Amino acid sequence: MTDPCALPPTPYYAVIFANRRAGPDDGYGAMAEKMATFAAEQDGFLGIDSARDADGFGITVSYWRDEAAIRAWKENAAHQVAQKLGHTRWYARFTLRVARVERQYDGPATAD
Amino acid sequence: MTDPCALPPTPYYAVIFANRRAGPDDGYGAMAEKMATFAAEQDGFLGIDSARDADGFGITVSYWRDEAAIRAWKENAAHQVAQKLGHTRWYARFTLRVARVERQYDGPATAD
Repeated sequence: MTDPCALPPTPYYAVIFANRRAGPDDGYGAMAEKMATFAAEQDGFLGIDSARDADGFGITVSYWRDEAAIRAWKENAAHQVAQKLGHTRWYARFTLRVARVERQYDGPATAD
Repeated sequence: MTDPCALPPTPYYAVIFANRRAGPDDGYGAMAEKMATFAAEQDGFLGIDSARDADGFGITVSYWRDEAAIRAWKENAAHQVAQKLGHTRWYARFTLRVARVERQYDGPATAD
């Protein structure tokens, strides 16, 4: 079973992507898996957490060393194709936030 | 159907709570709803996005005006009871990050 990904040392960056899927799968699941694999190979990638509920609302948070790593991934050619399909076909609505992680803890029982 | 919550003006703060549920509901759903209602009444609360997949992995991101608002909510008496039950009963594992939102956009079709 999936656990939340491990906490890297602060500071680092989080990309918070919240979205509502539009209509049928239409290649989405396969592309999402491929993008998660590609992202994990990028320089500066630190981890990813993702959940989607039964009615199509999802949140994916990816973690990155710095803004440069985020921008490089945004400009990745395969990712650009996926982004375009996301805009035109897969997402009825999304928000994307880039945030600097300043403090954190985990549990049960441990903290930093 | 749920949409991602609206983007407040930057900068502001996000609390990224990723977790894996342990065992049966055991009062969790009712408490989670109550906490979302209470949080929304707090000074400095800006919004919340939440998704949980079928096998019990969930992400809740709440948005706050500043660190002071986050700390006040963490110290809220009812919330402290819920946190304690979360640690001892409901969560097999969780991570919590506090991050400063620096830039953002939404779509399809709009951006800032």
